[in-house]
Amino acid sequence: MDISLSAIGVIHSPFTEPSQAPIQASRSTALGSVEIFPQFVEGVRDLEEFSHIFLLYLIDCPQGYSLKVKPFLDDQEHGIFATRYPCRPNPIGLSVVHLLRVKGNRLEVEGVDMLDDTPLLDIKPYVPEFDVRENAKVGWYGRRAYQ
Amino acid sequence: MDISLSAIGVIHSPFTEPSQAPIQASRSTALGSVEIFPQFVEGVRDLEEFSHIFLLYLIDCPQGYSLKVKPFLDDQEHGIFATRYPCRPNPIGLSVVHLLRVKGNRLEVEGVDMLDDTPLLDIKPYVPEFDVRENAKVGWYGRRAYQ
Repeated sequence: MDISLSAIGVIHSPFTEPSQAPIQASRSTALGSVEIFPQFVEGVRDLEEFSHIFLLYLIDCPQGYSLKVKPFLDDQEHGIFATRYPCRPNPIGLSVVHLLRVKGNRLEVEGVDMLDDTPLLDIKPYVPEFDVRENAKVGWYGRRAYQ
Repeated sequence: MDISLSAIGVIHSPFTEPSQAPIQASRSTALGSVEIFPQFVEGVRDLEEFSHIFLLYLIDCPQGYSLKVKPFLDDQEHGIFATRYPCRPNPIGLSVVHLLRVKGNRLEVEGVDMLDDTPLLDIKPYVPEFDVRENAKVGWYGRRAYQ
């Protein structure tokens, strides 16, 4: 089954090459902005009262993907779905960023880890009651080679 | 820009009608299973050591979407991107579920909130260091009409 989606906006960040990008949004203090295409602006009403938001976006992977990868923070291979490696069968990125302010169709955010001009697929408010799990076990990540 | 994705598997749950589904995965104790299509099974290696995983999936919205919606837990309209309402411009669902065990190409999980036979787009391991933010402000959700 083929699934067809369209970008609702574009994410601007200081990073133009993958080598510049932080490994995760949680490790980034970089400022960026999220430009919402005009026909979707009505959808951001009341978003400014949330301090953190999920961005879902399309990752550019011209080389395709492998099902086994060596993640940035380990020296062992793992199945792609046991990692957050960006290039995957459906290369959808997921980052929680800090929402600083909303100005018209532009969201100013802190903590970006994606490349400049990344196509935005969705925004969801981050709600700890929905999104936080206590005592999570993190498998190989707990024994990773690099910090 | 049109973006083309393909399902990597299918999620099985006890829910066949939207009215039966829990409002969020965090409020669900329902058991379900995630069937990975054979060509992607290699990608779940080492996943079993994680206790919680993100499922990204396609939500069936034959009626399309509205940019302003009244969410299940409030009596006021909000912009769609300030809610977790399922039908949205790109109807990608995001749920954290508890991974109980992996049996071949089948993941047994607890805490499903999606409908039976939902197309699976991606699995990511849940890692608190990446995914938890402290002191998040939750806007209208903090003043919502219903619990």
